[in-house]
Amino acid sequence: METKRTGAFELRDNHWEIRVWAPLRKSVDVEVKQGFTYPLTEDEDGYWTGVMEAAAGDDYRLILDDGKKRPDPASRRQPEGVHGWSRLYPQEGFSWDEDYWKNPPLEDYIIYEIHIGTFTSEGSFEAAIERLDDLVELGITAVEIMPISPFPGNRNWGYDGVYPYAVQESYGGPDGLKSLVQACHRRGLAVVLDVVYNHLGPEANYLLDYGPYFTDKYSTSWGAAINFDDAYCDHVRWFFVETVAQWFEEYHIDALRLDAVHAIVDNGPVHILRAFRERANRVEKATGRRHYLIPESDMNDSKLVRSFEAGGYGLDAQWADDFHHSVHALVTGERAGYYSDFGTVADVAKAFDQAMVYDGVYSSFRHKTVGTDSKNEEPWHFVVCIQNHDQVGNRKLGERLSQLVSFEMQKLVAGLMFISPYIPLLFMGEEYAEENPFQYFVSHGDSNLVAAVRKGRADEFKSFGWQGEAPDPQSKETFLRSKLDWSRRKSGRHASMLAYYTNLIALRKREVFSPFARVDTRVNESEKMLTLSSKEEGFTRLFAVANFSGKARKATLPVNPNDASLEYDWALVLASADSRWNGPGFDFSHAAEKHKRAIEVEVPAESLLVFQNRLYDRQK
Amino acid sequence: METKRTGAFELRDNHWEIRVWAPLRKSVDVEVKQGFTYPLTEDEDGYWTGVMEAAAGDDYRLILDDGKKRPDPASRRQPEGVHGWSRLYPQEGFSWDEDYWKNPPLEDYIIYEIHIGTFTSEGSFEAAIERLDDLVELGITAVEIMPISPFPGNRNWGYDGVYPYAVQESYGGPDGLKSLVQACHRRGLAVVLDVVYNHLGPEANYLLDYGPYFTDKYSTSWGAAINFDDAYCDHVRWFFVETVAQWFEEYHIDALRLDAVHAIVDNGPVHILRAFRERANRVEKATGRRHYLIPESDMNDSKLVRSFEAGGYGLDAQWADDFHHSVHALVTGERAGYYSDFGTVADVAKAFDQAMVYDGVYSSFRHKTVGTDSKNEEPWHFVVCIQNHDQVGNRKLGERLSQLVSFEMQKLVAGLMFISPYIPLLFMGEEYAEENPFQYFVSHGDSNLVAAVRKGRADEFKSFGWQGEAPDPQSKETFLRSKLDWSRRKSGRHASMLAYYTNLIALRKREVFSPFARVDTRVNESEKMLTLSSKEEGFTRLFAVANFSGKARKATLPVNPNDASLEYDWALVLASADSRWNGPGFDFSHAAEKHKRAIEVEVPAESLLVFQNRLYDRQK
Repeated sequence: METKRTGAFELRDNHWEIRVWAPLRKSVDVEVKQGFTYPLTEDEDGYWTGVMEAAAGDDYRLILDDGKKRPDPASRRQPEGVHGWSRLYPQEGFSWDEDYWKNPPLEDYIIYEIHIGTFTSEGSFEAAIERLDDLVELGITAVEIMPISPFPGNRNWGYDGVYPYAVQESYGGPDGLKSLVQACHRRGLAVVLDVVYNHLGPEANYLLDYGPYFTDKYSTSWGAAINFDDAYCDHVRWFFVETVAQWFEEYHIDALRLDAVHAIVDNGPVHILRAFRERANRVEKATGRRHYLIPESDMNDSKLVRSFEAGGYGLDAQWADDFHHSVHALVTGERAGYYSDFGTVADVAKAFDQAMVYDGVYSSFRHKTVGTDSKNEEPWHFVVCIQNHDQVGNRKLGERLSQLVSFEMQKLVAGLMFISPYIPLLFMGEEYAEENPFQYFVSHGDSNLVAAVRKGRADEFKSFGWQGEAPDPQSKETFLRSKLDWSRRKSGRHASMLAYYTNLIALRKREVFSPFARVDTRVNESEKMLTLSSKEEGFTRLFAVANFSGKARKATLPVNPNDASLEYDWALVLASADSRWNGPGFDFSHAAEKHKRAIEVEVPAESLLVFQNRLYDRQK
Repeated sequence: METKRTGAFELRDNHWEIRVWAPLRKSVDVEVKQGFTYPLTEDEDGYWTGVMEAAAGDDYRLILDDGKKRPDPASRRQPEGVHGWSRLYPQEGFSWDEDYWKNPPLEDYIIYEIHIGTFTSEGSFEAAIERLDDLVELGITAVEIMPISPFPGNRNWGYDGVYPYAVQESYGGPDGLKSLVQACHRRGLAVVLDVVYNHLGPEANYLLDYGPYFTDKYSTSWGAAINFDDAYCDHVRWFFVETVAQWFEEYHIDALRLDAVHAIVDNGPVHILRAFRERANRVEKATGRRHYLIPESDMNDSKLVRSFEAGGYGLDAQWADDFHHSVHALVTGERAGYYSDFGTVADVAKAFDQAMVYDGVYSSFRHKTVGTDSKNEEPWHFVVCIQNHDQVGNRKLGERLSQLVSFEMQKLVAGLMFISPYIPLLFMGEEYAEENPFQYFVSHGDSNLVAAVRKGRADEFKSFGWQGEAPDPQSKETFLRSKLDWSRRKSGRHASMLAYYTNLIALRKREVFSPFARVDTRVNESEKMLTLSSKEEGFTRLFAVANFSGKARKATLPVNPNDASLEYDWALVLASADSRWNGPGFDFSHAAEKHKRAIEVEVPAESLLVFQNRLYDRQK
């Protein structure tokens, strides 16, 4: 079988070719809204093709053999929403001007995750552009956009998308997204797009009417599994693989975040994740730019990032949620649900050292051994965070960390993330300790579905032991409540947090923390203390101490083990308790001179201190 | 969690330890048939352990918290059948005497597949031993035993087994199997055991009562999928992995044939097939013998045999059904079901050349692209056949090839199998063109199940377009009808076929055919001719021509392309039409002398000729 490009493409003035895959249908027609209806012709591979007289901007839909009128599965625009007509959209219409752009190396990514609907009060791509300069000032290098494929209504996290080639119109549609990408690139920001290849949304999933896009060989938490390896999978695979190419080639997206790949099952000869990377390789050859694929996964499986030659899927980096979970469980004291697998300082130490805590060890929560060895992976194979849309938004009340732990503790864990060797990901607003929640919201048109969503959420919360009424996902208030309040960042503790984050990112960019890629960890569980020392050639280059307890603790800076007369020259790089960011303060002036004896410092409660050994750099 | 050995083991005189895994039960007791009932104690990993006063040969069963009385999932003996008591069986009771034994290299395997129940009129391990000398005389080097784990009743192919550690009593039980293995080894025969890790039989699957041995994440054609990667999988994996060790260590089995591994789904960090191989590696270290794992698979995926380092499962060889299908479709003219994907001489040529016809190409029958490139695999990575229990027994009437094609054609395709570089597998009786069918038979105790089996078979036959009444699987007659008739092999065409097979195997063992591992194929589709030439350093070393048509055809033996004065010296190695094996005859005496010009031969209808270039060997 030969797979073919599907969708509508301009042939010449006022003539568009349309092709859809519907191998089990007896007839397919295309109807132009202000024009004619044309019968399509089927080829031996189940593709129906025809030419219609129409112009860019005209609307069309398909009529199946049983009379069903349906949008195009490969629709590029859905101006009236997920149930309406598809619109002819020429990708070439947008004029790009960014030949200069070069996607930075993945290890330089500092990712900032945004949800277009709640990032600004307007909730659009255009309004997001207005905020990019703030992000540049903060120092981030990549903007990650939560899914933007069309979903029912105007309020949704994006994981209910149903047109993998199109862009939500209420956000600004295809040209809006392209403008945002271009505006990012002009400011030196890479763009990561979150895409969903593990299921389609439960409302308006008209792919079901066209052919075997789904399989019942496997089940997922969100309904039918996409058919990546069963009968008829060739087109289905191709259909999704080509979206990867579209985002890179037509939208100039720099990287894709692949949602929940653990819910993608493919036992065929070439795993679909590898097929995505193979397609990305072909795009790179064509564009001359690097493009990254970054799966979210709960499998902790290095197969995702291993090379093709080693039997891996060759993806570029994967999410390491264990970093979040270990930090969150330790600092909030929460132990419900998956947090029951975490909670010790030792977990945080292991997460800092090798990203994955579950690296082939037994998980009591999952009742099975989880993960593969991650010790020898490159640090930029992992994306870590201390909060993200899921960890905030899947709480009953959608509380951010700012609502769960003290101001000082927030700074401690933010510091820990930025000094780690992994790619940090911030969730919009955390840089100024936003207090508004990020709650779960939808705007489905189907009342049964709304009831099912409400019940599903309630059940999940029960499993976490969370009692009481949850915000109504369908209510517009829930959506509005979840928007960032940009007025906050200018004053008080919010401004202090912003200054702290800005400082942290600046230090990270100056590669001050990079020696922590090789680290010795020491844990004092009863005192809730973690020390990190980065050794090179016998020298300790960097030394950090995190005090997770509510009391000030003592710590001793290392002395030179090789030669006591050659004293270490310790400089304070970072004190999360510094009064510059509204902390109780930390004074290191008494140790400004070298000391033969070990320097003892008092580590303030809930704080992080980082010291640099200037002697090392002088010796080099 | 720590996985632990389960089952009953002798501690000391009249004291046996019992351990079962039942993590969700509130209590488990063990009842000794002529003794006491003992409560077991649960550990934190869900294992229930206790000690009972009992002796080898005593019977016991387990009593679950709801009063259910159940056999031991790890039962070593089920003397009263799958629903009855388990029996204490000390593996050490059998005295082995075969330190001399060395499993031959896999490339030397010539496998003979037997079904214990129908191989002899007695249908037992003991009776099978009586026939081993015949197999030695035939020249085969490995006996493959269809599954022997206990199944309902006394008649079953074996794929409805429910006690993975035990042996069907009606065949002779554990000691019977051990005696057969020892008898094989004494005659220089390796033993392959067919084991089923993709499902358990539908009757008496009491594992369901003990714990989450199955998962609904995936579905198989035969019911619930075994839980190799879901919650609680650690014990389940261990339970099946240890059976691999048992067969090798306690039964001295040389290789396992893993049934239908395409129906095993495992997306965990270590695929269960790799885990099997890892366990086999540990056994090899302990025993100092080689042990092979040979999966049956319809995936045509080299991942099965690729090394761990290359991301594979490290298995030793896999079944290549494409060889069978391409040969069968060509010579029978059948095109129903999966045979619709085959039928040309070119398919046979490709199967000969690289085992897999579907090596990354589209299958119209399966409606998808199937397989990975197999060109660079070692030939002993593939097991091929021209008939086997499935290909014969899954026909409505269970006809062997002897009932479907002419005597000459049988010899042609048998020859093709043996001159191929792959590991050949014979199905019992094919060596003397047995005429009795091999039909599908069961002896279930559950009448609903019997009805379901009848319906399932009928539906499958309908999909092949086979009309009319099928033999009743539940009838004893069906079973009896499927037994070999050993009286046949002594006379007439049966004796001729046996002589032909014996000759073929002898030639193969003398490595006469081995140059065909590097082969050029030439196809004449309209004449139904296939020529195979093995070239080395410019010389053609071997030349074979297969005439699949009903008419005699001409073929020309190659001349020396380098130097016309240096004539090839062609000797006839094999003529399937030879009168020695009851064929119409083939005379090559006219070409006994060297000729400068090309030698033209007449290839009899439905025959195979193989020539050897003696000049090559003289030049070496």
